[in-house]
Amino acid sequence: MLIYKNEFTVPYYESDVTGNIKLPSLFNIALQLSGEQGAILNRSDQWTKAHYNYTWIVVEYEVDIQRLPVFNETMTIETFAKTYNKFFCYRDFIFYAENGDELLKISSTWVLIDVDTRKVAHVEDEIVAPYQSEKIKRIIRGHRFRELKLEPTCERNYFVRFNDIDQNGHVNNSKYLDWMIDMLDFDFLSTHVPQKIYLKYAKEVLYGVSVKSRAEVVGEQSFHEILTDDLNAQAEIIWRKNDDL
Amino acid sequence: MLIYKNEFTVPYYESDVTGNIKLPSLFNIALQLSGEQGAILNRSDQWTKAHYNYTWIVVEYEVDIQRLPVFNETMTIETFAKTYNKFFCYRDFIFYAENGDELLKISSTWVLIDVDTRKVAHVEDEIVAPYQSEKIKRIIRGHRFRELKLEPTCERNYFVRFNDIDQNGHVNNSKYLDWMIDMLDFDFLSTHVPQKIYLKYAKEVLYGVSVKSRAEVVGEQSFHEILTDDLNAQAEIIWRKNDDL
Repeated sequence: MLIYKNEFTVPYYESDVTGNIKLPSLFNIALQLSGEQGAILNRSDQWTKAHYNYTWIVVEYEVDIQRLPVFNETMTIETFAKTYNKFFCYRDFIFYAENGDELLKISSTWVLIDVDTRKVAHVEDEIVAPYQSEKIKRIIRGHRFRELKLEPTCERNYFVRFNDIDQNGHVNNSKYLDWMIDMLDFDFLSTHVPQKIYLKYAKEVLYGVSVKSRAEVVGEQSFHEILTDDLNAQAEIIWRKNDDL
Repeated sequence: MLIYKNEFTVPYYESDVTGNIKLPSLFNIALQLSGEQGAILNRSDQWTKAHYNYTWIVVEYEVDIQRLPVFNETMTIETFAKTYNKFFCYRDFIFYAENGDELLKISSTWVLIDVDTRKVAHVEDEIVAPYQSEKIKRIIRGHRFRELKLEPTCERNYFVRFNDIDQNGHVNNSKYLDWMIDMLDFDFLSTHVPQKIYLKYAKEVLYGVSVKSRAEVVGEQSFHEILTDDLNAQAEIIWRKNDDL
Protein backbone atom coordinates (compact mmCIF):
# COMPACT_ATOMS: atom_id res chain seq x y z
CA MET A 1 0.00 0.00 0.00
CA LEU A 2 1.67 3.19 -1.19
CA ILE A 3 1.01 6.32 0.82
CA TYR A 4 1.01 9.66 -0.98
CA LYS A 5 1.30 12.89 1.04
CA ASN A 6 1.12 16.56 0.31
CA GLU A 7 0.63 19.80 2.17
CA PHE A 8 -2.23 22.19 1.64
CA THR A 9 -2.88 25.65 3.06
CA VAL A 10 -6.53 26.73 3.23
CA PRO A 11 -6.98 29.83 1.06
CA TYR A 12 -9.45 32.62 1.83
CA TYR A 13 -11.86 31.55 -0.90
CA GLU A 14 -12.09 27.98 0.41
CA SER A 15 -13.12 29.16 3.88
CA ASP A 16 -16.57 30.21 5.04
CA VAL A 17 -17.81 33.16 7.10
CA THR A 18 -16.63 31.47 10.34
CA GLY A 19 -13.14 30.87 8.94
CA ASN A 20 -13.64 27.09 8.70
CA ILE A 21 -12.93 25.32 5.42
CA LYS A 22 -16.02 24.96 3.21
CA LEU A 23 -17.28 21.39 3.32
CA PRO A 24 -17.29 20.84 -0.47
CA SER A 25 -13.65 21.97 -0.53
CA LEU A 26 -12.68 18.98 1.62
CA PHE A 27 -13.69 16.66 -1.19
CA ASN A 28 -12.15 18.83 -3.89
CA ILE A 29 -8.80 18.86 -2.12
CA ALA A 30 -8.92 15.14 -1.39
CA LEU A 31 -9.62 14.29 -5.04
CA GLN A 32 -6.88 16.61 -6.18
CA LEU A 33 -4.47 14.56 -4.06
CA SER A 34 -5.54 11.18 -5.39
CA GLY A 35 -5.19 12.67 -8.88
CA GLU A 36 -1.62 13.67 -8.01
CA GLN A 37 -0.83 10.16 -6.81
CA GLY A 38 -2.31 8.70 -10.02
CA ALA A 39 -0.18 11.00 -12.15
CA ILE A 40 3.01 10.04 -10.28
CA LEU A 41 2.22 6.34 -10.69
CA ASN A 42 1.48 6.75 -14.41
CA ARG A 43 -2.21 6.17 -13.80
CA SER A 44 -3.56 9.64 -14.51
CA ASP A 45 -7.16 10.12 -15.62
CA GLN A 46 -5.74 10.64 -19.12
CA TRP A 47 -3.97 7.26 -18.97
CA THR A 48 -7.10 5.45 -17.79
CA LYS A 49 -9.15 7.06 -20.52
CA ALA A 50 -6.58 6.41 -23.26
CA HIS A 51 -6.01 2.75 -22.32
CA TYR A 52 -9.47 1.63 -21.23
CA ASN A 53 -11.87 4.48 -22.04
CA TYR A 54 -12.75 4.42 -18.33
CA THR A 55 -13.05 7.19 -15.80
CA TRP A 56 -13.07 7.07 -11.99
CA ILE A 57 -16.22 8.00 -10.11
CA VAL A 58 -16.62 8.27 -6.33
CA VAL A 59 -19.82 6.54 -5.26
CA GLU A 60 -19.59 6.91 -1.50
CA TYR A 61 -17.89 8.94 1.22
CA GLU A 62 -17.78 8.54 4.96
CA VAL A 63 -16.12 11.36 6.86
CA ASP A 64 -15.08 11.52 10.53
CA ILE A 65 -14.23 14.99 11.67
CA GLN A 66 -12.41 15.93 14.88
CA ARG A 67 -11.87 19.53 13.82
CA LEU A 68 -12.29 21.38 10.52
CA PRO A 69 -9.19 23.00 9.04
CA VAL A 70 -9.35 26.80 9.15
CA PHE A 71 -8.30 29.68 6.90
CA ASN A 72 -4.52 29.90 6.50
CA GLU A 73 -3.91 26.60 8.29
CA THR A 74 -1.36 24.33 6.63
CA MET A 75 -2.18 20.66 6.92
CA THR A 76 -0.66 17.46 5.65
CA ILE A 77 -2.97 15.14 3.76
CA GLU A 78 -2.18 11.49 3.33
CA THR A 79 -3.97 9.22 0.89
CA PHE A 80 -3.72 5.55 -0.01
CA ALA A 81 -5.73 2.99 -1.96
CA LYS A 82 -6.51 0.48 0.78
CA THR A 83 -8.22 -2.45 -0.91
CA TYR A 84 -10.19 -3.31 -4.03
CA ASN A 85 -12.43 -6.02 -5.39
CA LYS A 86 -14.04 -6.72 -8.78
CA PHE A 87 -16.07 -3.49 -8.81
CA PHE A 88 -14.96 -1.20 -6.01
CA CYS A 89 -11.77 0.49 -4.84
CA TYR A 90 -11.51 1.76 -1.28
CA ARG A 91 -9.35 4.79 -0.59
CA ASP A 92 -8.70 6.81 2.57
CA PHE A 93 -7.62 10.40 3.01
CA ILE A 94 -6.34 11.55 6.40
CA PHE A 95 -5.88 15.23 7.14
CA TYR A 96 -3.33 16.12 9.83
CA ALA A 97 -2.70 19.42 11.63
CA GLU A 98 0.85 20.80 11.80
CA ASN A 99 1.31 19.33 15.29
CA GLY A 100 0.45 15.88 13.93
CA ASP A 101 -3.11 15.69 15.34
CA GLU A 102 -5.62 14.01 13.06
CA LEU A 103 -8.17 16.56 11.88
CA LEU A 104 -10.42 14.33 9.83
CA LYS A 105 -10.57 11.16 7.81
CA ILE A 106 -12.41 10.54 4.56
CA SER A 107 -13.10 6.95 3.54
CA SER A 108 -14.19 6.71 -0.07
CA THR A 109 -15.50 4.07 -2.45
CA TRP A 110 -14.72 4.32 -6.16
CA VAL A 111 -15.85 2.64 -9.34
CA LEU A 112 -14.61 2.78 -12.90
CA ILE A 113 -17.20 3.61 -15.53
CA ASP A 114 -16.96 3.40 -19.30
CA VAL A 115 -16.79 6.96 -20.66
CA ASP A 116 -19.31 6.28 -23.45
CA THR A 117 -21.79 3.81 -21.98
CA ARG A 118 -21.52 5.30 -18.42
CA LYS A 119 -21.77 1.70 -17.15
CA VAL A 120 -19.66 0.34 -14.29
CA ALA A 121 -16.62 -1.62 -15.48
CA HIS A 122 -14.51 -4.33 -13.84
CA VAL A 123 -11.48 -3.09 -11.93
CA GLU A 124 -8.60 -4.46 -14.03
CA ASP A 125 -5.50 -5.37 -12.03
CA GLU A 126 -3.32 -3.43 -14.47
CA ILE A 127 -5.13 -0.19 -13.63
CA VAL A 128 -4.70 -0.43 -9.87
CA ALA A 129 -1.47 -2.46 -9.52
CA PRO A 130 0.85 0.56 -9.08
CA TYR A 131 -1.06 1.60 -5.93
CA GLN A 132 -0.11 -1.69 -4.25
CA SER A 133 -3.46 -2.08 -2.56
CA GLU A 134 -4.76 -5.42 -1.38
CA LYS A 135 -7.22 -7.32 -3.57
CA ILE A 136 -10.13 -8.59 -1.50
CA LYS A 137 -13.14 -10.79 -2.30
CA ARG A 138 -15.78 -9.15 -0.19
CA ILE A 139 -17.80 -6.07 -0.99
CA ILE A 140 -17.73 -3.64 1.91
CA ARG A 141 -21.22 -2.74 2.99
CA GLY A 142 -21.82 1.02 2.99
CA HIS A 143 -24.01 3.07 5.28
CA ARG A 144 -27.75 2.36 5.22
CA PHE A 145 -29.56 5.59 4.50
CA ARG A 146 -33.12 6.10 5.69
CA GLU A 147 -35.61 7.74 3.35
CA LEU A 148 -36.89 11.22 4.00
CA LYS A 149 -40.43 11.64 5.24
CA LEU A 150 -42.97 13.25 2.93
CA GLU A 151 -42.67 16.71 4.47
CA PRO A 152 -39.07 17.90 4.43
CA THR A 153 -37.83 20.73 6.64
CA CYS A 154 -36.62 22.51 3.54
CA GLU A 155 -36.58 21.97 -0.20
CA ARG A 156 -35.41 24.07 -3.12
CA ASN A 157 -34.67 23.68 -6.82
CA TYR A 158 -31.27 24.45 -8.31
CA PHE A 159 -30.39 24.89 -11.96
CA VAL A 160 -27.15 23.19 -12.84
CA ARG A 161 -24.59 25.86 -13.77
CA PHE A 162 -21.88 25.60 -16.42
CA ASN A 163 -19.24 25.83 -13.70
CA ASP A 164 -20.83 22.90 -11.82
CA ILE A 165 -19.74 20.59 -14.66
CA ASP A 166 -16.28 19.06 -14.57
CA GLN A 167 -14.10 17.42 -17.21
CA ASN A 168 -16.08 14.21 -16.73
CA GLY A 169 -18.99 16.07 -18.35
CA HIS A 170 -21.26 15.84 -15.30
CA VAL A 171 -21.87 17.76 -12.10
CA ASN A 172 -18.75 17.60 -9.95
CA ASN A 173 -19.35 15.52 -6.86
CA SER A 174 -18.55 18.36 -4.47
CA LYS A 175 -21.53 20.37 -5.79
CA TYR A 176 -24.09 17.98 -4.35
CA LEU A 177 -22.89 18.86 -0.88
CA ASP A 178 -23.26 22.54 -1.74
CA TRP A 179 -26.94 22.00 -2.56
CA MET A 180 -27.37 19.85 0.53
CA ILE A 181 -25.92 22.12 3.16
CA ASP A 182 -27.69 25.11 1.62
CA MET A 183 -30.87 23.55 3.12
CA LEU A 184 -29.64 24.54 6.59
CA ASP A 185 -29.96 28.15 7.62
CA PHE A 186 -27.25 30.68 8.38
CA ASP A 187 -27.71 30.51 12.16
CA PHE A 188 -27.34 26.73 12.18
CA LEU A 189 -24.35 26.65 9.82
CA SER A 190 -22.49 29.43 11.58
CA THR A 191 -22.83 27.74 15.00
CA HIS A 192 -22.47 24.05 14.08
CA VAL A 193 -19.78 21.88 12.54
CA PRO A 194 -20.21 18.37 11.19
CA GLN A 195 -18.66 15.47 13.06
CA LYS A 196 -19.80 12.74 10.70
CA ILE A 197 -20.86 12.82 7.04
CA TYR A 198 -22.26 9.92 5.04
CA LEU A 199 -22.67 10.73 1.35
CA LYS A 200 -23.74 8.43 -1.45
CA TYR A 201 -24.00 9.07 -5.19
CA ALA A 202 -26.66 7.08 -7.00
CA LYS A 203 -26.84 8.66 -10.44
CA GLU A 204 -24.88 11.40 -12.18
CA VAL A 205 -26.45 14.80 -12.94
CA LEU A 206 -25.86 16.36 -16.35
CA TYR A 207 -26.10 19.96 -17.57
CA GLY A 208 -29.45 21.55 -18.39
CA VAL A 209 -31.53 20.05 -15.61
CA SER A 210 -32.88 21.42 -12.40
CA VAL A 211 -32.26 19.37 -9.28
CA LYS A 212 -34.34 19.36 -6.14
CA SER A 213 -32.53 19.41 -2.83
CA ARG A 214 -34.61 18.25 0.17
CA ALA A 215 -33.58 17.96 3.78
CA GLU A 216 -34.99 16.95 7.09
CA VAL A 217 -33.38 18.23 10.26
CA VAL A 218 -33.89 16.19 13.44
CA GLY A 219 -32.07 17.71 16.39
CA GLU A 220 -28.41 17.84 15.41
CA GLN A 221 -28.76 15.40 12.53
CA SER A 222 -29.68 16.26 8.95
CA PHE A 223 -30.90 13.93 6.20
CA HIS A 224 -30.51 14.94 2.58
CA GLU A 225 -31.66 13.94 -0.89
CA ILE A 226 -30.81 15.32 -4.31
CA LEU A 227 -33.43 14.42 -6.90
CA THR A 228 -34.14 14.86 -10.59
CA ASP A 229 -36.49 12.25 -12.07
CA ASP A 230 -34.46 9.80 -10.02
CA LEU A 231 -32.67 9.89 -6.70
CA ASN A 232 -29.18 11.23 -7.48
CA ALA A 233 -27.58 11.41 -4.07
CA GLN A 234 -28.25 10.96 -0.36
CA ALA A 235 -26.49 12.16 2.75
CA GLU A 236 -26.68 12.11 6.50
CA ILE A 237 -24.76 14.56 8.61
CA ILE A 238 -24.29 14.50 12.37
CA TRP A 239 -23.53 18.00 13.65
CA ARG A 240 -22.23 19.41 16.89
CA LYS A 241 -22.05 22.91 18.37
CA ASN A 242 -18.96 24.78 17.25
CA ASP A 243 -16.95 25.02 20.50
CA ASP A 244 -14.61 27.64 19.13
CA LEU A 245 -17.27 30.33 19.03
CA MET B 1 6.80 49.35 -5.87
CA LEU B 2 7.30 45.89 -4.35
CA ILE B 3 6.49 42.94 -6.57
CA TYR B 4 5.21 39.76 -4.95
CA LYS B 5 5.28 36.49 -6.93
CA ASN B 6 4.05 32.99 -6.38
CA GLU B 7 3.36 29.89 -8.42
CA PHE B 8 -0.02 28.27 -8.77
CA THR B 9 -1.04 25.01 -10.43
CA VAL B 10 -4.65 24.81 -11.65
CA PRO B 11 -6.39 21.97 -9.78
CA TYR B 12 -9.14 19.80 -11.30
CA TYR B 13 -11.88 21.50 -9.31
CA GLU B 14 -10.90 24.98 -10.51
CA SER B 15 -11.19 23.96 -14.18
CA ASP B 16 -14.32 23.70 -16.28
CA VAL B 17 -15.60 21.07 -18.68
CA THR B 18 -13.21 22.32 -21.42
CA GLY B 19 -10.20 22.13 -19.09
CA ASN B 20 -9.85 25.93 -18.86
CA ILE B 21 -9.68 27.60 -15.47
CA LYS B 22 -13.08 28.74 -14.18
CA LEU B 23 -13.40 32.50 -14.51
CA PRO B 24 -14.33 33.17 -10.87
CA SER B 25 -11.22 31.22 -9.85
CA LEU B 26 -9.02 33.82 -11.54
CA PHE B 27 -10.19 36.41 -9.05
CA ASN B 28 -9.99 34.02 -6.09
CA ILE B 29 -6.39 33.16 -6.88
CA ALA B 30 -5.45 36.78 -7.48
CA LEU B 31 -6.89 37.89 -4.14
CA GLN B 32 -5.19 35.02 -2.37
CA LEU B 33 -1.90 36.39 -3.67
CA SER B 34 -2.47 39.96 -2.57
CA GLY B 35 -3.45 38.54 0.83
CA GLU B 36 -0.11 36.72 0.95
CA GLN B 37 1.76 39.92 0.12
CA GLY B 38 -0.15 41.77 2.83
CA ALA B 39 0.73 39.12 5.42
CA ILE B 40 4.43 39.25 4.51
CA LEU B 41 4.45 43.03 4.81
CA ASN B 42 2.64 42.93 8.17
CA ARG B 43 -0.49 44.36 6.60
CA SER B 44 -2.76 41.33 6.79
CA ASP B 45 -6.54 41.74 6.85
CA GLN B 46 -6.31 41.04 10.59
CA TRP B 47 -3.81 43.90 11.05
CA THR B 48 -5.99 46.34 9.10
CA LYS B 49 -9.04 45.36 11.11
CA ALA B 50 -7.23 45.48 14.47
CA HIS B 51 -5.58 48.87 13.84
CA TYR B 52 -8.25 50.73 11.89
CA ASN B 53 -11.39 48.54 11.91
CA TYR B 54 -11.16 48.68 8.10
CA THR B 55 -11.39 45.98 5.49
CA TRP B 56 -10.34 45.96 1.83
CA ILE B 57 -12.97 45.74 -0.89
CA VAL B 58 -12.36 45.44 -4.63
CA VAL B 59 -14.64 47.82 -6.48
CA GLU B 60 -13.49 47.27 -10.05
CA TYR B 61 -11.64 44.80 -12.25
CA GLU B 62 -10.41 45.05 -15.81
CA VAL B 63 -8.99 41.86 -17.27
CA ASP B 64 -7.04 41.34 -20.50
CA ILE B 65 -6.75 37.72 -21.50
CA GLN B 66 -4.39 36.27 -24.11
CA ARG B 67 -5.03 32.68 -23.06
CA LEU B 68 -6.76 31.11 -20.07
CA PRO B 69 -4.66 28.86 -17.83
CA VAL B 70 -5.67 25.20 -18.11
CA PHE B 71 -5.99 22.24 -15.76
CA ASN B 72 -2.62 21.15 -14.33
CA GLU B 73 -0.78 24.15 -15.78
CA THR B 74 1.67 25.81 -13.41
CA MET B 75 1.86 29.54 -13.79
CA THR B 76 3.65 32.34 -12.03
CA ILE B 77 1.54 35.21 -10.78
CA GLU B 78 3.01 38.60 -10.03
CA THR B 79 1.19 41.29 -8.12
CA PHE B 80 2.03 44.82 -7.05
CA ALA B 81 0.23 47.85 -5.65
CA LYS B 82 0.84 50.39 -8.42
CA THR B 83 -0.53 53.69 -7.17
CA TYR B 84 -3.03 55.10 -4.69
CA ASN B 85 -4.87 58.29 -3.92
CA LYS B 86 -7.13 59.47 -1.10
CA PHE B 87 -9.79 56.82 -1.71
CA PHE B 88 -8.52 54.24 -4.18
CA CYS B 89 -5.63 51.80 -4.48
CA TYR B 90 -4.69 50.39 -7.86
CA ARG B 91 -3.19 46.90 -8.01
CA ASP B 92 -2.19 44.68 -10.94
CA PHE B 93 -1.90 40.93 -11.19
CA ILE B 94 -0.03 39.40 -14.13
CA PHE B 95 -0.28 35.67 -14.85
CA TYR B 96 2.65 34.12 -16.75
CA ALA B 97 2.96 30.72 -18.42
CA GLU B 98 5.98 28.55 -17.65
CA ASN B 99 7.71 29.75 -20.83
CA GLY B 100 7.34 33.36 -19.65
CA ASP B 101 4.47 34.30 -21.97
CA GLU B 102 1.89 36.61 -20.43
CA LEU B 103 -1.42 34.78 -20.07
CA LEU B 104 -3.54 37.54 -18.64
CA LYS B 105 -3.50 40.73 -16.63
CA ILE B 106 -5.97 41.86 -14.00
CA SER B 107 -6.05 45.55 -13.10
CA SER B 108 -8.00 46.17 -9.92
CA THR B 109 -9.28 49.10 -7.91
CA TRP B 110 -9.63 48.80 -4.15
CA VAL B 111 -11.16 50.82 -1.35
CA LEU B 112 -11.01 50.52 2.42
CA ILE B 113 -14.35 50.42 4.20
CA ASP B 114 -15.12 50.68 7.89
CA VAL B 115 -16.17 47.24 9.12
CA ASP B 116 -19.11 48.59 11.14
CA THR B 117 -20.45 51.52 9.13
CA ARG B 118 -19.57 49.90 5.74
CA LYS B 119 -18.60 53.40 4.57
CA VAL B 120 -15.55 54.13 2.43
CA ALA B 121 -12.58 55.35 4.48
CA HIS B 122 -9.52 57.44 3.60
CA VAL B 123 -6.47 55.47 2.53
CA GLU B 124 -4.05 56.18 5.39
CA ASP B 125 -0.38 56.29 4.35
CA GLU B 126 0.52 53.95 7.24
CA ILE B 127 -1.68 51.21 5.82
CA VAL B 128 -0.18 51.22 2.34
CA ALA B 129 3.39 52.43 2.96
CA PRO B 130 4.97 48.92 3.08
CA TYR B 131 3.80 48.26 -0.51
CA GLN B 132 5.94 51.18 -1.75
CA SER B 133 3.36 52.28 -4.28
CA GLU B 134 3.26 55.80 -5.65
CA LYS B 135 0.80 58.29 -4.18
CA ILE B 136 -1.05 60.14 -6.94
CA LYS B 137 -3.55 62.99 -6.93
CA ARG B 138 -5.83 61.98 -9.74
CA ILE B 139 -8.65 59.48 -9.63
CA ILE B 140 -8.35 56.98 -12.48
CA ARG B 141 -11.52 56.89 -14.50
CA GLY B 142 -12.96 53.38 -14.79
CA HIS B 143 -14.86 51.81 -17.66
CA ARG B 144 -18.20 53.39 -18.61
CA PHE B 145 -20.84 50.70 -18.52
CA ARG B 146 -23.93 50.99 -20.66
CA GLU B 147 -27.30 50.07 -19.18
CA LEU B 148 -29.12 46.93 -20.26
CA LYS B 149 -32.17 47.32 -22.47
CA LEU B 150 -35.57 46.46 -21.03
CA GLU B 151 -35.67 42.94 -22.50
CA PRO B 152 -32.60 40.95 -21.49
CA THR B 153 -31.48 37.83 -23.36
CA CYS B 154 -31.64 35.93 -20.10
CA GLU B 155 -32.51 36.58 -16.47
CA ARG B 156 -32.71 34.36 -13.43
CA ASN B 157 -32.94 34.69 -9.65
CA TYR B 158 -30.37 33.20 -7.30
CA PHE B 159 -30.65 32.68 -3.57
CA VAL B 160 -27.46 33.62 -1.77
CA ARG B 161 -25.95 30.45 -0.26
CA PHE B 162 -24.10 30.15 3.05
CA ASN B 163 -20.95 29.23 1.14
CA ASP B 164 -21.24 32.39 -1.01
CA ILE B 165 -20.45 34.48 2.11
CA ASP B 166 -16.84 35.15 3.02
CA GLN B 167 -15.16 36.31 6.23
CA ASN B 168 -16.12 39.88 5.32
CA GLY B 169 -19.71 38.81 6.00
CA HIS B 170 -20.93 39.47 2.46
CA VAL B 171 -21.07 37.64 -0.85
CA ASN B 172 -17.54 36.98 -2.05
CA ASN B 173 -16.75 39.05 -5.12
CA SER B 174 -16.03 36.01 -7.30
CA LYS B 175 -19.62 34.79 -6.91
CA TYR B 176 -21.07 37.67 -8.91
CA LEU B 177 -19.20 36.42 -11.95
CA ASP B 178 -20.64 32.95 -11.35
CA TRP B 179 -24.17 34.38 -11.55
CA MET B 180 -23.22 36.46 -14.57
CA ILE B 181 -21.67 33.82 -16.77
CA ASP B 182 -24.45 31.39 -15.89
CA MET B 183 -26.63 33.60 -18.15
CA LEU B 184 -24.76 32.24 -21.18
CA ASP B 185 -25.63 28.77 -22.37
CA PHE B 186 -23.48 25.65 -22.44
CA ASP B 187 -22.83 25.80 -26.19
CA PHE B 188 -21.59 29.36 -25.97
CA LEU B 189 -19.44 28.84 -22.88
CA SER B 190 -17.86 25.65 -24.17
CA THR B 191 -16.86 27.25 -27.47
CA HIS B 192 -15.91 30.79 -26.37
CA VAL B 193 -13.31 32.31 -24.09
CA PRO B 194 -13.26 35.87 -22.77
CA GLN B 195 -10.62 38.26 -24.06
CA LYS B 196 -11.70 41.25 -22.00
CA ILE B 197 -13.71 41.54 -18.79
CA TYR B 198 -14.88 44.75 -17.15
CA LEU B 199 -16.47 44.19 -13.76
CA LYS B 200 -17.71 46.76 -11.28
CA TYR B 201 -19.12 46.33 -7.79
CA ALA B 202 -21.63 48.95 -6.71
CA LYS B 203 -23.14 47.56 -3.52
CA GLU B 204 -22.42 44.51 -1.39
CA VAL B 205 -24.88 41.60 -1.21
CA LEU B 206 -25.63 40.05 2.19
CA TYR B 207 -27.04 36.67 3.16
CA GLY B 208 -30.77 35.94 2.98
CA VAL B 209 -31.58 37.78 -0.21
CA SER B 210 -32.28 36.65 -3.72
CA VAL B 211 -30.36 38.39 -6.48
CA LYS B 212 -31.45 38.79 -10.07
CA SER B 213 -28.85 38.21 -12.76
CA ARG B 214 -29.69 39.71 -16.16
CA ALA B 215 -27.67 39.64 -19.34
CA GLU B 216 -27.83 40.85 -22.88
CA VAL B 217 -25.77 39.13 -25.53
CA VAL B 218 -24.89 41.12 -28.64
CA GLY B 219 -22.71 39.12 -31.02
CA GLU B 220 -19.62 38.17 -29.08
CA GLN B 221 -20.17 40.70 -26.34
CA SER B 222 -22.21 40.21 -23.18
CA PHE B 223 -23.55 42.84 -20.80
CA HIS B 224 -24.44 41.89 -17.25
CA GLU B 225 -26.21 43.25 -14.20
CA ILE B 226 -26.69 41.83 -10.72
CA LEU B 227 -29.64 43.40 -8.92
CA THR B 228 -31.42 43.26 -5.59
CA ASP B 229 -33.41 46.40 -4.74
CA ASP B 230 -30.38 48.23 -6.08
CA LEU B 231 -27.81 47.62 -8.75
CA ASN B 232 -25.10 45.52 -7.08
CA ALA B 233 -22.71 44.85 -9.94
CA GLN B 234 -22.20 45.32 -13.66
CA ALA B 235 -19.98 43.64 -16.19
CA GLU B 236 -19.12 43.62 -19.86
CA ILE B 237 -17.31 40.71 -21.42
CA ILE B 238 -15.83 40.54 -24.91
CA TRP B 239 -15.60 36.92 -26.06
CA ARG B 240 -13.81 35.14 -28.86
CA LYS B 241 -14.06 31.65 -30.33
CA ASN B 242 -11.91 29.15 -28.46
CA ASP B 243 -9.21 28.36 -31.05
CA ASP B 244 -8.03 25.29 -29.16
CA LEU B 245 -11.19 23.31 -29.89
